[in-house]
Amino acid sequence: MQGTTGTPPQHTDTYPPTDRTVPTRSPDRAAYDKELVHSILDEGYVCHLGFVRDGAPVVLPTLYGRVGERLYVHGSTGSRPLRMTGAADPGLPVCLTVTHVDALVLARSAFHHSINYRSVVVHGTAYEVTDPEERRTALDALVDHVVPGRSRDSRPADKKELAATAVIRLDLDEVSAKLRTGGVSDEPEDLGLPHWAGLVPLRKGYEAPVADPALTPGIALPDYLSAG
Amino acid sequence: MQGTTGTPPQHTDTYPPTDRTVPTRSPDRAAYDKELVHSILDEGYVCHLGFVRDGAPVVLPTLYGRVGERLYVHGSTGSRPLRMTGAADPGLPVCLTVTHVDALVLARSAFHHSINYRSVVVHGTAYEVTDPEERRTALDALVDHVVPGRSRDSRPADKKELAATAVIRLDLDEVSAKLRTGGVSDEPEDLGLPHWAGLVPLRKGYEAPVADPALTPGIALPDYLSAG
Repeated sequence: MQGTTGTPPQHTDTYPPTDRTVPTRSPDRAAYDKELVHSILDEGYVCHLGFVRDGAPVVLPTLYGRVGERLYVHGSTGSRPLRMTGAADPGLPVCLTVTHVDALVLARSAFHHSINYRSVVVHGTAYEVTDPEERRTALDALVDHVVPGRSRDSRPADKKELAATAVIRLDLDEVSAKLRTGGVSDEPEDLGLPHWAGLVPLRKGYEAPVADPALTPGIALPDYLSAG
Repeated sequence: MQGTTGTPPQHTDTYPPTDRTVPTRSPDRAAYDKELVHSILDEGYVCHLGFVRDGAPVVLPTLYGRVGERLYVHGSTGSRPLRMTGAADPGLPVCLTVTHVDALVLARSAFHHSINYRSVVVHGTAYEVTDPEERRTALDALVDHVVPGRSRDSRPADKKELAATAVIRLDLDEVSAKLRTGGVSDEPEDLGLPHWAGLVPLRKGYEAPVADPALTPGIALPDYLSAG
């Protein structure tokens, strides 16, 4: 793999670190465990997809789905990033990042203010998916990523919808997670300062679902939404 | 401004659209209103900062703050993106994106599944801030961005901490918001399908703050945290 460092072969449950997945700062916060990476990816709704256009960076939020070691992103066949990944192209270099903010960390010193977070950064090349079966699998994964189990409880895309939808694939090869967990890290000499310090956990999950006003009477809230 | 389209002069309460801030798809979802852009930026905790390294895109989550029409990002003076913006440099082309996911949109058709979201994308060049007063202002803004009012209730950075902190600035010149709001948009012929449809609003705000175990007894939870 391009950029692989001189580390010994990794256990298959981890992604091999590379020059660009080993941070220059706080390397102790970096992790390569596949299960951890998958859990962070599966919990997110939106990724931030970065690519280069006319030499400048572009970062767009977009839905995504995961099937094993592959991520899928979709969009209109007319959208700019997806047009750049056509089968005739050599693929599009991308960086796909997913971040969860878990808590605000309020220290006594301004300097040690932080957040507890979990993020995954994926470097690689995105390719357009043209195989009809893989496209179906990817589109189901995109719907199930929003709510697990949902793809079986909705009308699948028809021919016209499929023709309007581009699907791109990014393999999970060059991947790292980065996390901050735990409490406040103040300097020992600051502990007596008269400032409140602690964690402020952010709320997670969702509120009560709101049915479409046009919903056919008698359709109950599905089980996959009642867990909250 | 580079890339400005042939639109007439804009009201000063909006950002002038440019080639790269007018989306090719769903242009009706794009907005340039400064007040709206500010409100989306001020509600976020983390931005996704994109830049180009060795020709490839990199997208990293990071804290940010806003002072009027300027955004500030900080980091260790040893971190890679910040090293690339030194005073000797011509600045670093970046794309800074902030996204809020407000609700899951479950349609009867897989194709019309979506999310309600609000995002801001800022294109521009980031410069290192060297003026001591602007650095102070920026660092206060970064702390106050996490919790408004917090910078006045914490120990300011000392000389050593200031020396270890790089601050970069990105002006709000080439900016757009993009939003999806409202309900489910199914095809008329799908309305009778036996699938639940509606919105699933995501939870916002934070849980009860958790005091640092080493907190000096008698320090009460500050007012700026009791609003939740």
